[in-house]
Amino acid sequence: MNKKVSLLLFSGEFDKALAALILANEAKAMDMDVSIFCAFWGLLLVRDPEKLTDRDKTIYEKMFGAMTAKGADDLPLSKMNFAGIGKMMLTEMMEDADAPPLDAFLKGAVNKGVTFYACKLSTEVMGFGTEEFIDGVKIVTAKDYLQIATESDMQLFI
Amino acid sequence: MNKKVSLLLFSGEFDKALAALILANEAKAMDMDVSIFCAFWGLLLVRDPEKLTDRDKTIYEKMFGAMTAKGADDLPLSKMNFAGIGKMMLTEMMEDADAPPLDAFLKGAVNKGVTFYACKLSTEVMGFGTEEFIDGVKIVTAKDYLQIATESDMQLFI
Amino acid sequence: MNKKVSLLLFSGEFDKALAALILANEAKAMDMDVSIFCAFWGLLLVRDPEKLTDRDKTIYEKMFGAMTAKGADDLPLSKMNFAGIGKMMLTEMMEDADAPPLDAFLKGAVNKGVTFYACKLSTEVMGFGTEEFIDGVKIVTAKDYLQIATESDMQLFI
Repeated sequence: MNKKVSLLLFSGEFDKALAALILANEAKAMDMDVSIFCAFWGLLLVRDPEKLTDRDKTIYEKMFGAMTAKGADDLPLSKMNFAGIGKMMLTEMMEDADAPPLDAFLKGAVNKGVTFYACKLSTEVMGFGTEEFIDGVKIVTAKDYLQIATESDMQLFI
Repeated sequence: MNKKVSLLLFSGEFDKALAALILANEAKAMDMDVSIFCAFWGLLLVRDPEKLTDRDKTIYEKMFGAMTAKGADDLPLSKMNFAGIGKMMLTEMMEDADAPPLDAFLKGAVNKGVTFYACKLSTEVMGFGTEEFIDGVKIVTAKDYLQIATESDMQLFI
Repeated sequence: MNKKVSLLLFSGEFDKALAALILANEAKAMDMDVSIFCAFWGLLLVRDPEKLTDRDKTIYEKMFGAMTAKGADDLPLSKMNFAGIGKMMLTEMMEDADAPPLDAFLKGAVNKGVTFYACKLSTEVMGFGTEEFIDGVKIVTAKDYLQIATESDMQLFI
């Protein structure tokens, strides 16, 4: 039986999302079953910048949507971001080391069959609609997450 | 046998404490055994604002006690806190989505039988006394935590 | 058979590194097998300040090396650092509580046989050379980490 890896992505930062996606891609390449449960700021990774909408949102939800990162490429660094300069530097250093960009890791994970979940309560609080996420993201409850996580061989909170 | 969930709450932030408490409450509702081991900044969640005291504290411990959050309601957001405005916005968005406040999740967890532990070394370093915590918090060592965590079905560091 | 503990140290902060090392030392004292996989900012913990070099580095790698913490003692607090004052206060509070300094926990962990790994991709992106790390650090891939982590009794992302 395949090993199971369960990641809870809580953070909405470039470097942490990168860590989650690298682990997810590698685990998948090792024939493991991998799921990423995006909650709170982690939802920002799976927002599709082409699909964002303000329809049916309260004022707060509109403000929140406008002030937060619009998808993978827009996430800041968790430290040394320096209004984007630190992040630019890091992405160039990744290029120099022949590492693919974050977006490529995200697309790779989706294509290889990593399962992406979005936390139902978080989407409701933040006012994100299902139609604003990248294709394939399923909205599930914390209960569903716990079911999957307790049956996995490893769980990380990122 | 019941599934076991072990959470190590290291962070002293509103959104992370909320994530821990939501998971703890849901896991408990699924008949799992749940423990939250509060260490470092995570201790701020279980400070009881009604019971804080400066007795027998060094100058540093008094300063530290005064500069840090005084219980669940006082925790800041991990990002976009904006001197409390971001947090106020998020708590109103939670109300709009019919989600209970952090304090209700904390009380719920205590009432449902989630076990709360406080890290002995952290309490000693920070100068927090047992009598300053909410009822039911037991002070244990890192060793006790490791014993419980390695026998659990899932462990998260939050 | 010994219990196995797998820690992924992603953060480059004093308090989080301290948490990882305390757990590692205690687990080792309980006869568990412990490994710490340092990735991204977590690599800063195992830089040896005596061995840092700029040889064969690009401009960005030199800048990055100069702007980041030079080993365990140089790590900032994750919060309340206040340009080092908060950290100084916390280290004095640790002394008052008879807790050893971070460096002692690191040396203790190495001496007791905690295995330290450095993430290959992170070292390449950040331009850190093997020769710049403290003795005993092995460079391994994310795949190696996943192999070890999925066979461990507990895993934490710190």
